[in-house]
Amino acid sequence: MTDPETLHMQQREHERLKMLLKVAGSISSEMQLDKLLRLIMDEVKQVLQCDRCTVFVLDREHNELWSRVAHGESEIRFPAHLGIAGAVVQSGQVINIPDAYADSRFNPNIDRQTGYHTRNLLSAPMRNKPGEIIGVFQILNKLEGPFTREDEEILNAISVLAATQIENAQLYEEQKKTFDSLVETLASTIDARDPLTAGHSQRISLYADEIGRVLRLQTQEREVLRISALLHDYGKIAVREAVLTKNDKLTDEEFSHIRNHAAYTRSILEKINFSRELRQVPLIAASHHERVDGTGYPAGLMDDEIPLLSKILAVADVFDALTSKRHYRTRMPFTEVIQLLLDNIGSQFDPLPVNAFRAVKLDRLVRILEHEHPDRLEAEELHFLSGFDSVDYITAAQAEAPEFQPRLVRIFQRYYMQEYLQSSTTAQTQGKG
Amino acid sequence: MTDPETLHMQQREHERLKMLLKVAGSISSEMQLDKLLRLIMDEVKQVLQCDRCTVFVLDREHNELWSRVAHGESEIRFPAHLGIAGAVVQSGQVINIPDAYADSRFNPNIDRQTGYHTRNLLSAPMRNKPGEIIGVFQILNKLEGPFTREDEEILNAISVLAATQIENAQLYEEQKKTFDSLVETLASTIDARDPLTAGHSQRISLYADEIGRVLRLQTQEREVLRISALLHDYGKIAVREAVLTKNDKLTDEEFSHIRNHAAYTRSILEKINFSRELRQVPLIAASHHERVDGTGYPAGLMDDEIPLLSKILAVADVFDALTSKRHYRTRMPFTEVIQLLLDNIGSQFDPLPVNAFRAVKLDRLVRILEHEHPDRLEAEELHFLSGFDSVDYITAAQAEAPEFQPRLVRIFQRYYMQEYLQSSTTAQTQGKG
Repeated sequence: MTDPETLHMQQREHERLKMLLKVAGSISSEMQLDKLLRLIMDEVKQVLQCDRCTVFVLDREHNELWSRVAHGESEIRFPAHLGIAGAVVQSGQVINIPDAYADSRFNPNIDRQTGYHTRNLLSAPMRNKPGEIIGVFQILNKLEGPFTREDEEILNAISVLAATQIENAQLYEEQKKTFDSLVETLASTIDARDPLTAGHSQRISLYADEIGRVLRLQTQEREVLRISALLHDYGKIAVREAVLTKNDKLTDEEFSHIRNHAAYTRSILEKINFSRELRQVPLIAASHHERVDGTGYPAGLMDDEIPLLSKILAVADVFDALTSKRHYRTRMPFTEVIQLLLDNIGSQFDPLPVNAFRAVKLDRLVRILEHEHPDRLEAEELHFLSGFDSVDYITAAQAEAPEFQPRLVRIFQRYYMQEYLQSSTTAQTQGKG
Repeated sequence: MTDPETLHMQQREHERLKMLLKVAGSISSEMQLDKLLRLIMDEVKQVLQCDRCTVFVLDREHNELWSRVAHGESEIRFPAHLGIAGAVVQSGQVINIPDAYADSRFNPNIDRQTGYHTRNLLSAPMRNKPGEIIGVFQILNKLEGPFTREDEEILNAISVLAATQIENAQLYEEQKKTFDSLVETLASTIDARDPLTAGHSQRISLYADEIGRVLRLQTQEREVLRISALLHDYGKIAVREAVLTKNDKLTDEEFSHIRNHAAYTRSILEKINFSRELRQVPLIAASHHERVDGTGYPAGLMDDEIPLLSKILAVADVFDALTSKRHYRTRMPFTEVIQLLLDNIGSQFDPLPVNAFRAVKLDRLVRILEHEHPDRLEAEELHFLSGFDSVDYITAAQAEAPEFQPRLVRIFQRYYMQEYLQSSTTAQTQGKG
């Protein structure tokens, strides 16, 4: 009745169920697609005792397969009929190649390009519960011997668990993308009401994020900062257009009406049912005009009462206001802008975000300054600028011996002063900033 | 080595693993919180062979437990220390009561209220992977005998699977709520730019949804309709305020500038990275001024070229424009409004949404008409109105014998003409519409 073989099979089946349940438990709580894919690849590698596992996800809209290389950042993407993974998508069948170089389906060029040596290979479709193929597993080099029939079965059992969670994560990611692009779109429509502020909200979010990186803020704080930056001026929707775009001096009433935009930002954003992680957005966004000396608005908060993220926004906001293109003038010289930030430490600004801003590398500043014209950027120059920050620049620009780092000054100025837009004479004069 | 008892235990352990894997597979793809909770309750009922299972979810922010009654719509909510479920949250321990009426922890009042007879009960904490309690299982009346130690173990194993997926669904739901409230907030800020259109986008979404219900649109289509309705006037953000709020007659240039809002709606919304299900929103939203005779804008689409959802928006939009409160006049009489919709079938409107609109029950219309003043609604009157639609109303209002359905006419008119806001004489005069 229970001969040793049956017993042994039961034992293996038992082990397999335990393993599957462990995999299910491990992947089920990961909703970040990138992390989930990495987790799945790691689990499969371990369970099937092999050297490499790649999950390719099928993008039905573009009929492509894509993957992020394990632990890498870059994405691979190719038409969904190419290679072994493509053949698996097309046929819906497992491909098990015990000896790669003896099999015509294997393309040795990839090994040649990557320097990897593929001995054997197992590739299988990843199907969701309704049985649709949503991706492909590609597994290389079993540590001992070739991939077995049992490996195929295990992979098949993992497949539906993985596919289900990938679909959950995709759903979540899609919704997040929709939310993000909605926020960006409405930020830019607000900016567009005043031609002088076009692109302002996008840029302040980028500057603020750079400060956040220098200060090593956590991912979640940086997300709050980014959304708050994008929405910081949303209250301007409640400001009269005539006042917003007035060129003449504002009356007291008009000035106070404009200042109200910060309070409007708060009251409008407070109507939004932000998720727990974003709950601070209305307060952070609305406090970008607070000053550490307590003379800011809307609440007149003092120093420690102002959230750090709002103090970051204050610096980013002023920097962008001083350096954004105004049709009636060129940018204030960079040295003066930085000096102005420093001079206002203790009155308007907290020293922390100002000093963090000064530590942002110049290539990153240039990318934001030229955010609307990425085509103007030259990779080699950016690479060079990435070795320096504002402090370096100012040292170089003020050095009495003008040959000290002349390249740094020249390259940065060319972007900063947008000299390609001006006559060369003007450029010469302004190049000293 | 493998005596019958060990073998038997292995067998049971094996069955349990299979069952858990089945439960994991079953619940892992459900991301709608309501459906997920129902699914978990059903699975537990089946696995533990009992009569009832309720999942209470812990709301940490308000320190409450809540549940939707299985297969019901209504929510139960109570402080997180009350009852047996509350005791489980507080202690973190399982409570297993083999004989309810012999146990002082059991409160027989609930049975008295519900008419249910509780024989035995098992209540256990639901913990996520980090071990935090996120809810409570409460299980009643095992079909045979009391709940066993093994039942407790099984429930414990299901617990972490259920908790993980509940957290995924909550994350997804929270993000969706944030998105929805962002859309509503920006819709209302757009409406607020022109005092005459306050609340317009919200109401058009409600009217459109009623038409969608009558036409039995699918959930997903209704969602596209709802979001499109909320955003249909977003292009007005690009319309000059002076033109938008001008009281005098518009010049040709101004008129054409205002008409551009539909095209602006499309170009702005097209920048949003809508998820697959919402991909049609920019087109639907922007086509609310198209006319079936091809003389509408922005694209001058003809009849079949206009999406059905846009045709619904067109009807809802005009109905709200004619019935929304204008400071300078009272509402156009209801009969005239409906007649105007009918008269414009074939030129402006498609018959389908107009006739669907006429079939919307009057209680639902009144709820939307009084959307900003739910306090004015009287439940008994609404219940009465729920038996009639616009066609009934007009029949009643036009009947030569005025005693025919006088109550219907009187009640609807009181809400429609907002007679409580007017002098009784005016109300009399206008009450005939």
